Order: sequence, then C-alpha cells, then structure tokens
Amino acid sequence: MRYELYYWPGIPGRGEFVRLALEAGRAKYVDVARLPKRSGGGVSALMRWMEDDAVKRRPFAPPYLKAGRLIIGQTANILLYLGPRLGLVPEDEGSRLWVHQLQLTIADFVSEIHDVHHPIASSLYYHQQKREARRYAGHFLAERLPKFLGYFEEVLAANARGKGYMVGKALSYVDLSTFQLIGGLHYAFPNAMARIAADIPRLLVLHERIATHPRLAAYLASERRLDFNENGIFRHYPELDPG
Amino acid sequence: MRYELYYWPGIPGRGEFVRLALEAGRAKYVDVARLPKRSGGGVSALMRWMEDDAVKRRPFAPPYLKAGRLIIGQTANILLYLGPRLGLVPEDEGSRLWVHQLQLTIADFVSEIHDVHHPIASSLYYHQQKREARRYAGHFLAERLPKFLGYFEEVLAANARGKGYMVGKALSYVDLSTFQLIGGLHYAFPNAMARIAADIPRLLVLHERIATHPRLAAYLASERRLDFNENGIFRHYPELDPG
Repeated sequence: MRYELYYWPGIPGRGEFVRLALEAGRAKYVDVARLPKRSGGGVSALMRWMEDDAVKRRPFAPPYLKAGRLIIGQTANILLYLGPRLGLVPEDEGSRLWVHQLQLTIADFVSEIHDVHHPIASSLYYHQQKREARRYAGHFLAERLPKFLGYFEEVLAANARGKGYMVGKALSYVDLSTFQLIGGLHYAFPNAMARIAADIPRLLVLHERIATHPRLAAYLASERRLDFNENGIFRHYPELDPG
Repeated sequence: MRYELYYWPGIPGRGEFVRLALEAGRAKYVDVARLPKRSGGGVSALMRWMEDDAVKRRPFAPPYLKAGRLIIGQTANILLYLGPRLGLVPEDEGSRLWVHQLQLTIADFVSEIHDVHHPIASSLYYHQQKREARRYAGHFLAERLPKFLGYFEEVLAANARGKGYMVGKALSYVDLSTFQLIGGLHYAFPNAMARIAADIPRLLVLHERIATHPRLAAYLASERRLDFNENGIFRHYPELDPG
C-alpha cells in the first residue's frame, strides 16, 4: 500500500503525528500537499477531497489519509488504522484501546495548547486576541500543563517493565506522539518546561530515545521534517511563557 | 457482560453519549456514581479508579467504562469498544472508521461548545470569564456552529440511501450522539438554532426520529435521563445567545 497523506504544507501541526508513524513504520507514502503544484501538490490538492461533492465521506479538516479507496480523517483515527498495519501497537484489544485512549488524551492536550494562542477564535490572528491569550496562558501553565504531563509521567511509571515505552514493551504510535508533544512544548514554553523538568524525568528520557531511534533520527535530519513555527500549533511567544 | 459506567452524577455531559448507546443497545449497566453513597456510589466511587495507584491504566477524566477487567476512558474510545458489541455500527472496517471519525468530529465540536462559557479556564467560574465568553460566543455562533452543523447536514445528505441515518442503513452510535448534540444546542442556543433551522432539515428530522425511537423514548421519559443544566457542557446563558 502506498499511502497519501494530506496536510497543510507549511507546519508540522497535527499532520506530524501521522508522519512520525509512517516514518517509524517504514511506510511508503506521499506527502501530497507538499509536492510542487505542477506535480499535483499544494493547498488545492489538499482541498480537493474535502470540497468535492462527488466524495461521499469527506473529512471535516486535515490531516487525512488516503489508503486505497478509503479516506480517513481525524489524527487519532488515522493512527488507529495505521497502528496494526505498521506494527506500532500491541496485539491484544485491551492494549490497543489503551494506546488509542492515550492518543485521544494527547489530542485533548494539543487542542488546549492551540488555544493558548487562540483562546477566542481560529479566524482571528494572535495579535487580535493577545490579552485573552495572556490570561489563558497563566492558567494553562499553572494548571493544565502540570496536570497533563503529570498524568503521562505516571503512565510511563506504571508501565515499569515496559523499558520506557508508554504501553507494553515495544514502540507504539503513542510514544511517537508523546515525542512530538514534548518537543513542541519545549519549543513553545522553554521557561515553563525548565521549571517542570525535575517532575517528568521519564518523559524527557522517552523524548531523547525517540529522537535517537535509528529510523526516526534519519527522518528528523531530513528535509521531510518540518520545524516548529509561529503558524502552527506549538508557537513560541515570549510573553506567553514568562521566565 | 454487566458494564459499569462512571461519570459525574449531576450532569448529562460527555457521559450521556455513552449512556445513549448503552440504552439503545439494551446493555446491562450500572451508572455507578449515581447510586447512593451507601450503595457504593457518589463522586468518591468515580474517583477511585482514577486515583488509586494500584490501577495500572488509569483514565485521565470521566467518563470511563468498566467492562470486566478493562477500564476504558475517552468517550469516543468507549463507543468504539461498545459499537460492535451492542450492534451500533456497520460490519465493514471502512464504515467503522467513518463512524469513529464522525464521533471524533462531534467530540471536537463539543469541546468548542464547552469553551463558549469557559474560554479561559475550566478552573474558573463562568462569571469570572464572562467578558471573554461573550467575545468567544460571537465568533462561535457566526462561524463554528454553521460550519459544524453544515458539515453534519452534508454527511446525512451524502448518505441518501441511508434512510436518514448518518452511516449505512441502520442506527449507529453516531446517530445517538448527533441527537444529543442537537438537543443540547437547542437548549443552549435557542435563538441561533432557530435562525439556522432552515439549513439543517435532515439533522432536525434525525433528532425527532431518535427521540421517538421506541427504546430511546422509554429511556428519555425515565428518571435515568438527566436534564441539561448550567453545570454541564450545554448551558443556556441568554447573553451568549442574543435574539
């Protein structure tokens, strides 16, 4: 199977959670919207399956994955589909539900991380909701960041025989998403992450391990990997991360 | 299997999406936190599986479902598990992924609906973020409500041979969740819903059909059904729904 990934070309965003799984699972895939327009890429390629009336099961938003005739939307749903096919989940149903549950909890966290810089409306620019963003960020850094990271740290601690993986004894897609989450938080909130570092040793080790995982290291060094930037979900605005 | 549902006792909230599936699927279940405290209910029963160190795979937040030894968290994940067991999804994998994808899109919408009255922080009361809520609500009603409802209306239209169901030709859990969504929106935003009614005829018909579905009608008339209220996700604050 040659997969087609569709996501906004200029940001890692939610697409990166899927890309990491495709890369770690050595999948054959095309990152369609990042192709040049003359090769069928660009944003118009991205919109095609979302806006064409002839498409019966249109996704609400990117990312989505074309897998043969299937068009699969929602990040966690794409990973639910890819996990068993790429060897990135354990075999038993209980563990698969648990991996998916953790992925959905990451999705909730990512949504709150987005709202730090966009608390009022996605249709406005950051500078149009800066005052509200500052107030949101105060609560986010004091309450939500420690709560979510504390939870994932406990998940790692509770999987004590798991060699540092989130679930079971091998790499699963939720490890890859956790890597992306920690990297993004370091980028966006370096001060807050420095303050919390001593409380999340296992998450920091996991982040390092994934970064140096042979298949991932090659990808991360390649041009396929997109840097975090201020158009994406994880944005660094110093005024939202006071020292 | 006798399921145990765990959710906050005083609100329909996200627990109701699970409850509707259990009721429509004629499942045997106990709504644990709504039992009297002397029978093992109450909020302390709810917290037990979330806070006990002996629990290996603790959920981050309610609702969660105990199914034998499994503890399953995240609303959409619970429905993913229950769907095939209660006959509330089609057989083929593509349709199951599609139902789940729609459920996750509902979850995104529900999260935004919550943020209308809590745009800054869950830890604050509504009256402490009233000004921001008013600004959020303006964008939500003008942009997000029509976008999400327009999408789900198109999903129904595209499933033209489906007898008014969202996916395939029979009731699935996403129909039940859509029912709850429309009911909640009518409760919270009667003015906005009146304005948009002509654009979402199929969603309104679906809402009526589910309300009068024999199994559901009995449940909805029972004491097991909780009313919407101002502690839940769908809240009616007149200042957030101008006429």
